[in-house]
Amino acid sequence: MALDRLKQVAGHAAGTMGPPHPLDPLSEAEIEAAVAIVRKEYANLHFNAVALWEPRKTDMFAWLADPKNAPRPHRVADVVAIGKGSKVFDGVVDLTEGKIVSWKITQGVQPLITMEDLQIVEGIVRRDPKVIEQCGIIGIPPEDMDKVYCDPWTIGYDERFGTSIRLQQALMYYRPHIDDCQYTYPLDFCPVFNADTHEVIHIDVPKVRRPVSKAPPNNYHAAAIEAEGGFRNDLKPINITQPEGVSFKMDGRVLSWQNWKVHIGFNYREGIVLNNITFNDKGTERPVFWRLSLAEMVVPYGNPEHPHQRKHAFDLGEYGGGYMTNSLSLGCDCKGAIHYMDAAFVNRAGAAETIKNAICIHEEDAGILFKHSDFRDNSCTVTRARKLIVSHIFTAANYEYCVYWIFHQDGTIQLEIKLTGILNTYAMNEGEDTHGWGTEVYPGVNAHNHQHLFCLRVDPNIDGPNNTVFQVDAARGPGEVGSAENKYGNAFYAAKKKLSTAGEGMCDYNGETSRTWEMANTNKINPYSKKPVTYKLVSREVPTLLPKEGGLVWKRAGFARHAVHVTKYSDDQIHPAGRHVPQTSGEPSQGLPMWIAQNPSASIDNTDVVLWHTFGITHFPSPEDFPVMPAEPMTLLLRPRNFFTKNPCLDVPPSYCSVPSGVKQGGALVDQLSRLAFDDEKKSCCK
Amino acid sequence: MALDRLKQVAGHAAGTMGPPHPLDPLSEAEIEAAVAIVRKEYANLHFNAVALWEPRKTDMFAWLADPKNAPRPHRVADVVAIGKGSKVFDGVVDLTEGKIVSWKITQGVQPLITMEDLQIVEGIVRRDPKVIEQCGIIGIPPEDMDKVYCDPWTIGYDERFGTSIRLQQALMYYRPHIDDCQYTYPLDFCPVFNADTHEVIHIDVPKVRRPVSKAPPNNYHAAAIEAEGGFRNDLKPINITQPEGVSFKMDGRVLSWQNWKVHIGFNYREGIVLNNITFNDKGTERPVFWRLSLAEMVVPYGNPEHPHQRKHAFDLGEYGGGYMTNSLSLGCDCKGAIHYMDAAFVNRAGAAETIKNAICIHEEDAGILFKHSDFRDNSCTVTRARKLIVSHIFTAANYEYCVYWIFHQDGTIQLEIKLTGILNTYAMNEGEDTHGWGTEVYPGVNAHNHQHLFCLRVDPNIDGPNNTVFQVDAARGPGEVGSAENKYGNAFYAAKKKLSTAGEGMCDYNGETSRTWEMANTNKINPYSKKPVTYKLVSREVPTLLPKEGGLVWKRAGFARHAVHVTKYSDDQIHPAGRHVPQTSGEPSQGLPMWIAQNPSASIDNTDVVLWHTFGITHFPSPEDFPVMPAEPMTLLLRPRNFFTKNPCLDVPPSYCSVPSGVKQGGALVDQLSRLAFDDEKKSCCK
Ligand SMILES: [Co+2]
Ligand SMILES: [Co+2]
Repeated sequence: MALDRLKQVAGHAAGTMGPPHPLDPLSEAEIEAAVAIVRKEYANLHFNAVALWEPRKTDMFAWLADPKNAPRPHRVADVVAIGKGSKVFDGVVDLTEGKIVSWKITQGVQPLITMEDLQIVEGIVRRDPKVIEQCGIIGIPPEDMDKVYCDPWTIGYDERFGTSIRLQQALMYYRPHIDDCQYTYPLDFCPVFNADTHEVIHIDVPKVRRPVSKAPPNNYHAAAIEAEGGFRNDLKPINITQPEGVSFKMDGRVLSWQNWKVHIGFNYREGIVLNNITFNDKGTERPVFWRLSLAEMVVPYGNPEHPHQRKHAFDLGEYGGGYMTNSLSLGCDCKGAIHYMDAAFVNRAGAAETIKNAICIHEEDAGILFKHSDFRDNSCTVTRARKLIVSHIFTAANYEYCVYWIFHQDGTIQLEIKLTGILNTYAMNEGEDTHGWGTEVYPGVNAHNHQHLFCLRVDPNIDGPNNTVFQVDAARGPGEVGSAENKYGNAFYAAKKKLSTAGEGMCDYNGETSRTWEMANTNKINPYSKKPVTYKLVSREVPTLLPKEGGLVWKRAGFARHAVHVTKYSDDQIHPAGRHVPQTSGEPSQGLPMWIAQNPSASIDNTDVVLWHTFGITHFPSPEDFPVMPAEPMTLLLRPRNFFTKNPCLDVPPSYCSVPSGVKQGGALVDQLSRLAFDDEKKSCCK
Repeated sequence: MALDRLKQVAGHAAGTMGPPHPLDPLSEAEIEAAVAIVRKEYANLHFNAVALWEPRKTDMFAWLADPKNAPRPHRVADVVAIGKGSKVFDGVVDLTEGKIVSWKITQGVQPLITMEDLQIVEGIVRRDPKVIEQCGIIGIPPEDMDKVYCDPWTIGYDERFGTSIRLQQALMYYRPHIDDCQYTYPLDFCPVFNADTHEVIHIDVPKVRRPVSKAPPNNYHAAAIEAEGGFRNDLKPINITQPEGVSFKMDGRVLSWQNWKVHIGFNYREGIVLNNITFNDKGTERPVFWRLSLAEMVVPYGNPEHPHQRKHAFDLGEYGGGYMTNSLSLGCDCKGAIHYMDAAFVNRAGAAETIKNAICIHEEDAGILFKHSDFRDNSCTVTRARKLIVSHIFTAANYEYCVYWIFHQDGTIQLEIKLTGILNTYAMNEGEDTHGWGTEVYPGVNAHNHQHLFCLRVDPNIDGPNNTVFQVDAARGPGEVGSAENKYGNAFYAAKKKLSTAGEGMCDYNGETSRTWEMANTNKINPYSKKPVTYKLVSREVPTLLPKEGGLVWKRAGFARHAVHVTKYSDDQIHPAGRHVPQTSGEPSQGLPMWIAQNPSASIDNTDVVLWHTFGITHFPSPEDFPVMPAEPMTLLLRPRNFFTKNPCLDVPPSYCSVPSGVKQGGALVDQLSRLAFDDEKKSCCK
């Protein structure tokens, strides 16, 4: 890394590298420069975050419109640091000018828990006499304390301890053997850890004790599979290659592919951030979205017994989707021709560290893009689709979240999330009643019901920043069956409701009406349809927040109360559950509910708006999810509607095209390698 | 074909081919044998369908259980033929015994319209003086009648003409040039065609006339794209190969792959039929589904103006998803290592005809199957997924439906449907108000709102035929926030409602509760979870039928009134809108509503049941859907829940596996061909 940094600095000095794009994440050198500037004035801090303080949108728009004359936005670091006594410092450091712009102690908040913060806990818990005592009670002798593990979570919020002390709760497990999966052996008690003093300050012990399970291990690692009869040997390899290279180009972090252009950012909270997304429509670069990210998530668990109400991780706001991101491997996580990007972060000590291969970018064949045959003459056109995927995977303790931002040639952007990893588990006695709050997925293992709720932040820029959101429901036409206006009862239409104020912008889902939301530029009308140019949010996995109104999760995860919120754009409104999420009580609710309550009559009509969409799944575990869960996908689409005047991918070369007059064309992209499964002879379609 | 038949007959004679599986579609030889048997007794018929009359389920179960001793089900043909005067004959021919089992005239029905039936209409319409007159009125001179085209549809139902005469409606179009897309030039009138006498018997003419459009063509064929600047040239090839062959095996039409076994049938109505689906669970072949198919669909259009209410095609029941199926091409429709199966049908004249490559079977890489990393020691397992896809594509006049039955290694079966092809269009004048019933997708082109509603027929066989269906809703627990039982308000659970009778088995969708339906075998309990073994239907694209109760579509498409119907199994209940769909009035409603009304209190609890699921999308067209529509996907899952005792694909070889003790394994399936996009050096993960 030191060498990399030297090269980078040397590159800048020699003028061989341009300056970073204003939206590029801070480089290692910039992170360490920010730390050095802070250190000149403040000592005895450990660093929680040093990340790009994103340029104000007006500055960015001005610079993008006229990069030669408009001022280039400064490189600025957003700094969070922690001092003794859980003191939290929020600072802004201008790297271009080499100075601190602001620095303050923020009272009554706790910044997220980093991986380093987590790593500290296990060793301390193992040595704590009260923990050793509890282990003894459930059957683990003191000499086996090296077999005791914990997943330290933020405490969420516990009214007994409040917000002023930085706390973690330690979800306890046991491994009979070092290679055993600890989630098969959950322990029944839960220590509370003071992250300032590094002490266990409390242990929550259930009334009914649950001795550690004596069930045999339930492992998924290779040795366990070998012992059970070995791996299947009937899978033949599939090879995916791009002998002429990939179809996308990278200019720094600006990706160009199939008329799309997008800046790929990354930060410790949201992970991938897509900025300034444009689509080249026959030579015109039309803005589509200014910024897309997963801005927050919450995973409420449904067991009401104390202290399980604390299990409702805000994985982005409390841990960071970027911080938890995996270093990806070629051929394993990613297959084909892959471009990786690294991610640099600060560590506690203020040094920069890099996760190699944090972001994966690759293309995939996507089946048929469009096809039509004419039945009367067998004329036919068939064109195959390609998609481009920008992805990362993060591990949140037991769970893995695989996040795929997918660009399609037809102007659609798709977000797909796959859940894998391991269920969060709790101990249960033989014959114990789960009361429906969970499922016994293995003897002695209770996997509690939970939801995975994600908040997608969409900053639309549909042919410009002034946009309007409409709620759209499929609706029956007026007029009873038999009436003159609707004799056969078949009339139906798209009922559109304009969301005019932030207060009106809180919408629930309606599966029955196939409800969608349209982000429109009402100043720009499609010349054919006479409707505003639009991108439509099509999302079908939209469960209600199940924790009740007024309860702990409802208060803390205000963003999840509605499927959609729409707010007027503000540079500082990125985090819908608040900037610092751990140990928020939800009183008052941070983030979205607060912003909207401040001015519910704020106009969101034909102005710069942000759409926040909460989606996800409700997960009732079953044994097939254990000991590791086959990936469960969920997806949503952002689709152009009345945005183009025709299908924007007609010029993708067809695999085959014949017309009634007899002319045949195409085949340039038909691979000559597709084969019949049980036949040596190659038979191409393009005779 | 003659040669193929000779070979087939010779093969049987020489004993080199076994007898067909009882569920195999009729071969060409069998079709022609059935026709010959009928012809011996009946003359002057044209054949509408000669297809496998499926063995009765009890006979099949008996034979499968003991193939050596139980009687082998006979090969039997289900015959539909049409005589002069629209006389309809329904017959059953036992091919094993070489005799007619039943033969009758069926009154008051019309069988589906075949491709040959359709082909007859256009020439007659072009020569009809009244049609020529109407063309003149809207600006097409008599000498241009060769530029006039029609898509002949069944008439659906028109109360003015009833059911006794076999009718088609001719949706009229114009092509300025033979290679122009006619859907850009819809004509405003609609002839009604008598398929018995081959005459135009009526023309529906709108009050307001719409002269043929003078807009320039809007084509997507290669010449048009070349004229507009040519095809994009920045797509590099992606090659997908299986150098060691595919991972599935075919024994006749029985496919084996990754613990799955399934018989792949095909018929003229439903297209692909999957039978006797089993999953090998550690050596035990467990039945999962007896039969899966798309059994019906309806596409109601939303414009109430006469005669558009007649636009509500039952593409399967009125035309046949098998009859309309495409002959697929290697490298175009299908990519990789492909196994094709052909489909044989009867033609009007009684000869067998075969669509080559009607069914495509292939594997695809499916990303990550499961992954977990332990944050404390970076131990990690990542395993890639494979899926197997059985697909066909059918063209229903303007639209293409791509149907993908997807098998996953984790026991999930997925049905994905992609819509592509061309919008159905109608003429509009400049400045004409669409009244919200459609969208002007191009000057003079009104694309009406419509729904695509599919009916999936699921015959579950979850560890045996006696199954029970539960409706499952995510529900909040009892107890207000602050109460002892639900202090923090976070309790939630899966509320299950047993569907006990056919009358109770009619269920609507509820997106808010993430409603699912579970097909359970209540006689078999998962040893860990103590819940019945189950497959769960997860389907999220479930719009309400928008045509109103009591209206024409509501009456004819009874299956679409509810998201789910459950009926007691009956061998003869395959077609939810009835056996013969064209020109049904819906009074009484055929198919599902009739079967349920016959005995609404019939028990569906712990007996052989069928679940019928209606899903789909509501399509409000926009210009980007034209002149050919980028494929729009919809999908649903059948997922095992409490069916296995653990993740059933743990033995798929990992790409990478390392454990805390330091052992590393895996990599056998990591292709050595994945590459960095912008780097020549290969970097494998498995160092
Ligand atoms: Co989950
Ligand atoms: Co459509």
